[in-house]
Amino acid sequence: MRTPATIREVGLRDGLQLVKQFLPTESKIAWCKEESLAGLKEIEVTSFVPPSVVPQFVDAADVVAATLSVSGLEIAALVPNFKGATRAFEAGVHKINYVLSASEMHNQANVRRSTEDSLQDFERIASERNTRKLPTKIVGGIATVFGCTIQGAVPEARVFEIAERLRNLGADELIIADTVGYANPRQVRRMLQRIVEIFAGPVYAHFHDTRGLGLANVSAAVDAGVTRFDASIGGLGGCPFAPGASGNIDTEDCAYLLESIGFDTGLDIEKLVALRNKVAHWLPNERVGGTIARAGLPKTFVPTQSKRQSAEPTVQHASVQ
Amino acid sequence: MRTPATIREVGLRDGLQLVKQFLPTESKIAWCKEESLAGLKEIEVTSFVPPSVVPQFVDAADVVAATLSVSGLEIAALVPNFKGATRAFEAGVHKINYVLSASEMHNQANVRRSTEDSLQDFERIASERNTRKLPTKIVGGIATVFGCTIQGAVPEARVFEIAERLRNLGADELIIADTVGYANPRQVRRMLQRIVEIFAGPVYAHFHDTRGLGLANVSAAVDAGVTRFDASIGGLGGCPFAPGASGNIDTEDCAYLLESIGFDTGLDIEKLVALRNKVAHWLPNERVGGTIARAGLPKTFVPTQSKRQSAEPTVQHASVQ
Repeated sequence: MRTPATIREVGLRDGLQLVKQFLPTESKIAWCKEESLAGLKEIEVTSFVPPSVVPQFVDAADVVAATLSVSGLEIAALVPNFKGATRAFEAGVHKINYVLSASEMHNQANVRRSTEDSLQDFERIASERNTRKLPTKIVGGIATVFGCTIQGAVPEARVFEIAERLRNLGADELIIADTVGYANPRQVRRMLQRIVEIFAGPVYAHFHDTRGLGLANVSAAVDAGVTRFDASIGGLGGCPFAPGASGNIDTEDCAYLLESIGFDTGLDIEKLVALRNKVAHWLPNERVGGTIARAGLPKTFVPTQSKRQSAEPTVQHASVQ
Repeated sequence: MRTPATIREVGLRDGLQLVKQFLPTESKIAWCKEESLAGLKEIEVTSFVPPSVVPQFVDAADVVAATLSVSGLEIAALVPNFKGATRAFEAGVHKINYVLSASEMHNQANVRRSTEDSLQDFERIASERNTRKLPTKIVGGIATVFGCTIQGAVPEARVFEIAERLRNLGADELIIADTVGYANPRQVRRMLQRIVEIFAGPVYAHFHDTRGLGLANVSAAVDAGVTRFDASIGGLGGCPFAPGASGNIDTEDCAYLLESIGFDTGLDIEKLVALRNKVAHWLPNERVGGTIARAGLPKTFVPTQSKRQSAEPTVQHASVQ
């Protein structure tokens, strides 16, 4: 039996947030359905930011409503503040990814307040969930963990402190994000080893491939005991504060890496490549990457056991390991 | 003090071997001189194959003659057989990289004989060097170590056996090549650990980034104790038997990875990027990649100590560690 590993699709959020062209709601829903058929169990489907800031997400509630009905799919949404969380609660998401930056300057640029204020908002959101007795998971996302294009270095001690605070404030899961593509494998291994110890719950790593080290960092994260990764079909996405950024690691390439080093992702890579080609067709002005889409799988590639046993999409929840 | 790591440029050989456009001899020489000024200490400048097979290398002897005069630069050439080695000896190269494939089918396709016959040719070359009392290093290169697009899987035991044979036949160094981009980090770490034990001399890893794992494999090779890597400016290159292959790992991106995880490559990455841009200009029809060329170095990047101390190119030999 292979060890399971989880890839969460974030292309609909991180990938689309800088895309000027509005991707029709039906296409977003089709994307989720098709990816679920490829074996994906969790998708960050949208962001509850003000539509005036990111018009792409004007249909957030509609996308959530439609995708909640896809069997076996865990629906997450990003929120930047309490107001966004309120909208996400009302939409009925399974999981709220609340993101703050370890870099003070990035937090100010991104959500116009201090990291400390953002932590207090996290507390309010968790408290609101408890008061309403909702089953929604509240996730603490830490951005710019490995450095910041505005501030430069981010003290590691500050990152560890925030991880501990989020744990104490009741975060169900953690996301550790290299928002600007500064991380290197040695740093990833060292920092994630410590974070996994501190948090003692599910930790997702979120890497951007800005400087070619995205998959090297995934491999290093695996060494540190992390088996959950955010990724975006075709590597779609970027960061407004990281000029030239090439976006998230590719979902299909990340699946290839994890399967090739012996994990069971439950994913059908060829179906992911077909979806990547569809997304590239939908968004003709965007850079959609992918090495597996170009070069194909090796002859020596052994698909995951679960795929050989059944062509049905698995319905196991992403949070069960 | 940082641990030294070596990058050898192979773009002039592996990069150019599939390029139809003839790069003028003066450009090849200028490439070597400029890369030496960026701190590079070793270049595989050409291949002694019959010009009828690869017209690009018709100027092999001229390129060697001109680059031998660049101070502090070790000049290597690839040879596929005894005849090529004879030409390389006459040209006066410092190092002969003799390549055979662990995959029988790849060896047949590449040099039209068995791996065993190729090993016997290696013995003849080493013997010729000894008879002539030449200082030339003879290097054993093993291709398709991690799998083959023709044959599929390559038995690991066969690779280890060839490494041992090459050691016993007097190879000064070893090159372990993922010719077709099939390697994954777990396999790289496992196999290189064993090969480093068997060979007990300098081992170079040669990765292609065909399926996005090139730099993840470099990172895994470092874990196995390997600190010498082949790379190509802008990732120029590929393999005739690996369709869609994106070529070697990028010299400048590999330097960024090694420096970022704490090694001293002695390289000036910005000068490498300038050379990459020049090569892209020389070869307008080729795919020239590079993430650092696109995204730039992180604000947090700390250059190697040797660079901070001196702007002069180091003259230390690549083989000294």
